[in-house]
Amino acid sequence: MPVGQILSKSFELQTPVLESRNSPEKCISFLLFKMAKQKNAISPTREEDYPEWYQQVVRAADLAENTPVRGCMVIKPWGYGIWENIRDALDKMFKDTGHKNAYFPLFIPKSFLQREAEHVDGFAKECAVVTHSRLEADENGILQPAGELEEPLIVRPTSETIIGELFARWVQSYRDLPLLINQWANVVRWEMRPRLFLRTAEFLWQEGHTVHATAEEAVEETRLMLHTYADFAENWLAMPVLRGEKTEAERFPGAESTLCIEAMMQDRKALQAGTSHFLGQNFSKACGIKFQGTEGKEEFGWTTSWGVSTRLIGGMIMTHADDDGLIVPPRLSPTQIAILPVTPKEDTRSQVLEACDRLYRELGAQTAFDLPIRVEVDDRDLRGGEKYWQWVKKGVPLTVEIGPRDLENGTVFLGRRDSDGGREGMSKDALLSSVGSLLADIQKNLFSKAQAFQMEHTREIDNREELYEFFTPSNSEKPEIHGGFARIHWDRDAKWEEQLKNDLKVTVRCIPEGESEPGICPFSGLPSPGRVVVAKSY
Amino acid sequence: MPVGQILSKSFELQTPVLESRNSPEKCISFLLFKMAKQKNAISPTREEDYPEWYQQVVRAADLAENTPVRGCMVIKPWGYGIWENIRDALDKMFKDTGHKNAYFPLFIPKSFLQREAEHVDGFAKECAVVTHSRLEADENGILQPAGELEEPLIVRPTSETIIGELFARWVQSYRDLPLLINQWANVVRWEMRPRLFLRTAEFLWQEGHTVHATAEEAVEETRLMLHTYADFAENWLAMPVLRGEKTEAERFPGAESTLCIEAMMQDRKALQAGTSHFLGQNFSKACGIKFQGTEGKEEFGWTTSWGVSTRLIGGMIMTHADDDGLIVPPRLSPTQIAILPVTPKEDTRSQVLEACDRLYRELGAQTAFDLPIRVEVDDRDLRGGEKYWQWVKKGVPLTVEIGPRDLENGTVFLGRRDSDGGREGMSKDALLSSVGSLLADIQKNLFSKAQAFQMEHTREIDNREELYEFFTPSNSEKPEIHGGFARIHWDRDAKWEEQLKNDLKVTVRCIPEGESEPGICPFSGLPSPGRVVVAKSY
Repeated sequence: MPVGQILSKSFELQTPVLESRNSPEKCISFLLFKMAKQKNAISPTREEDYPEWYQQVVRAADLAENTPVRGCMVIKPWGYGIWENIRDALDKMFKDTGHKNAYFPLFIPKSFLQREAEHVDGFAKECAVVTHSRLEADENGILQPAGELEEPLIVRPTSETIIGELFARWVQSYRDLPLLINQWANVVRWEMRPRLFLRTAEFLWQEGHTVHATAEEAVEETRLMLHTYADFAENWLAMPVLRGEKTEAERFPGAESTLCIEAMMQDRKALQAGTSHFLGQNFSKACGIKFQGTEGKEEFGWTTSWGVSTRLIGGMIMTHADDDGLIVPPRLSPTQIAILPVTPKEDTRSQVLEACDRLYRELGAQTAFDLPIRVEVDDRDLRGGEKYWQWVKKGVPLTVEIGPRDLENGTVFLGRRDSDGGREGMSKDALLSSVGSLLADIQKNLFSKAQAFQMEHTREIDNREELYEFFTPSNSEKPEIHGGFARIHWDRDAKWEEQLKNDLKVTVRCIPEGESEPGICPFSGLPSPGRVVVAKSY
Repeated sequence: MPVGQILSKSFELQTPVLESRNSPEKCISFLLFKMAKQKNAISPTREEDYPEWYQQVVRAADLAENTPVRGCMVIKPWGYGIWENIRDALDKMFKDTGHKNAYFPLFIPKSFLQREAEHVDGFAKECAVVTHSRLEADENGILQPAGELEEPLIVRPTSETIIGELFARWVQSYRDLPLLINQWANVVRWEMRPRLFLRTAEFLWQEGHTVHATAEEAVEETRLMLHTYADFAENWLAMPVLRGEKTEAERFPGAESTLCIEAMMQDRKALQAGTSHFLGQNFSKACGIKFQGTEGKEEFGWTTSWGVSTRLIGGMIMTHADDDGLIVPPRLSPTQIAILPVTPKEDTRSQVLEACDRLYRELGAQTAFDLPIRVEVDDRDLRGGEKYWQWVKKGVPLTVEIGPRDLENGTVFLGRRDSDGGREGMSKDALLSSVGSLLADIQKNLFSKAQAFQMEHTREIDNREELYEFFTPSNSEKPEIHGGFARIHWDRDAKWEEQLKNDLKVTVRCIPEGESEPGICPFSGLPSPGRVVVAKSY
């Protein structure tokens, strides 16, 4: 049996083309790789220290950094490229459902925040307050705040009150409804314990704000946008999510109901990945959004708001990344294929670079997900191994290495980021004819893997002891990684929710859509209208 | 001679298809339109009150509004749609020249602004100062600022200092250079006399920031980006611009040199539409951006910055809009063709709507400027005339009206926004086969018209009296509209620049590129190395 085939068998390699393994050099390089691979690219591993692993993945992928401004991050080109792709995909979904973008002021007058009582409590506590309009040098030449404002301005933590004020001008008649507006913007909420992407003082987001003539239409909009988010999370982020409603305790301040999508991270905690709020007439009354109905009567509008943020990138990281670093789902990856020239000798260098450039154009002419494939040639002057691992840590879906030998053989060396990190030789023609489906396959594979993980760590629990045990790490478990999603009955009495929070640091993540099988509450023994999902969370 | 032809002749109509004018109904409607057209859609006209005309154009096109936050505007969907197209076109140009996007903090610590001496003077005077991190209710339940910050934070007026701080971390070796970064963001500069788009406290912009190993490379980057801006202004905004350098007095605070593009508005004032700064080593020294050169020596980097903002929309308005409202260049118009169903009778209504929908799909399948044409059917329940004029005032390049008669005849009624406002019948097939070139023709026509206007009001002036006369309105002129661009010699002594400013409120807009014909300064009689352009400006 040729040596390549022996290796393929013993390592259970999946990629179809194995011929190039018959070259002893390729076999040696493969074995060297496997030996090196005893070690992971990210230290610590998820098992060793999950929170620190997260920070290291972000750093190794060059996604973002902390800055001298407490809680404010800089999103670096690779991270921002992912955000641009998230934005463009969602933006198209919003426009396809009739929404238009607009841009509202960064600042909200202090008095506006005071208008909606619950909203005040929710947002006034953690905001950036602008009090002066100028800096002036003092006698020592040090700049000092000057020009005190008559009314302080708040950097928007969310824009319901200022947008409501303007909507009140724009809405006059039922003919102006529905008003379907979205804004892409930065917002600021002071955070005591910031973490890159998950919880930062400033973050980027979109906030949809709509006005409708009836409660039914507004409720329908709230659902539509929740399903848009779920669709995006699953088909673009490859992140399976629960769709459901928040309990009263977990609602957005000022909302009648809050719908949400919740994903499971690899430490089995829940991440709230998007919310959609039915605001009833609370904000339209606070802001005066009135319209003349078909029969001439003046009525208050029914409003909604909904948002997702750069937090989605945190969710993507904790759904897919492994101990070698980030894995970006192909649909969102700024670069889907990194071509890496291998130029050990000066005399073949220019030929290799030419071949890379040719392949760059050939791959760029192919499509994946109905769009041109995004390819890049990385011809930086760096050692080959270092360069390859940089791309692994960035989570690029495919790497393609080409060396002098490949020129003669018409082959390439392909690395799939969702595999174990090994690379396999294949003919260039085979790559060109399969690359679109390869990327689609990686996208699907990432989703399936995450879905299997979520299912593995979701449990129906019917008694209190088992529930407490589920959320308490056993001796064999790392304290950061345990538990998961518990599907439990609950009589809807808020006191049990409060108790769970105090005893286990666990919250009701959502009342899942369509959950209507009645049962018995394990706390009170009273009837429950259906299961809810409880978990620890970010 | 048929009546249609008589009309065509006497009104000098240009559009090729005139047959439908032979129908008496069409002739009557045409004459009615011409009579109505004695009046303009925007009041006052440019001649009557230019500044007020500008405000009315913005309002009638529904581009933007003032808000209760002084100086901060809301950019409404039509205005924001134009901005999205500006952003996407420029973004592609930046990426094609090797730049990558990133996102930096909104806030700058007060001490950072103090680092570069000239920069302090330029920006400290007009900024939003955050001094508190919380609001707390007082005894009366009124929210008051609380949680005073140790160091005040400034909402970025521009980001050289914070980006410089981070670049200092990112740049270590010559291998890290050039570093080519761009940011799309909001910035705040307190403005005493805000005007929508032209001068607002908060505005949207992009700011490019780059670091290079040599002064030559940085200077080359500064030029490259200036030419990118000029290319965009002329080919997308259809706005002819001068390319040149600012005088020392007009430079960006902290720059070694500032390049700019300057456009002429219809009141003949100049609008600075984009700037590109060579910052030398000023900011790299202030922020510590150092790198190890090829020979191991540590050196300071050479930096540039360059930006354009939502001000471009103000420039677009004042370049093209007329007394009927906005005119949007086709390449940037969110909708390029508005299809307007004319449904006078209930029994043909659904047929007309079907025909509109069919045309919508047929036009959307055509391309203009190598992109699918952006079409919209406006089937709102509004009177036909009102609906048509709304689109005229929004500046949509083409309107297409379809009524019951057109169904039988296979015709449409086409309105070109760059013509005199009249509409002419043409066959639907002719429209479909020519629509791409029609839009390209409008784009070209707008540029030519603006260029002719600029040339008409640019004058070479060689003596002082003539210059003073040029910038002083005569009795027959409206005080707001006079003058233009004066190309004058100048010995480069700043005292004459200062005098022009004091006497005439005129500044040197730029020293145009390639201007090297020597002459005599009309102020001093001393030699001048070449002409400069002086004008009143926004």
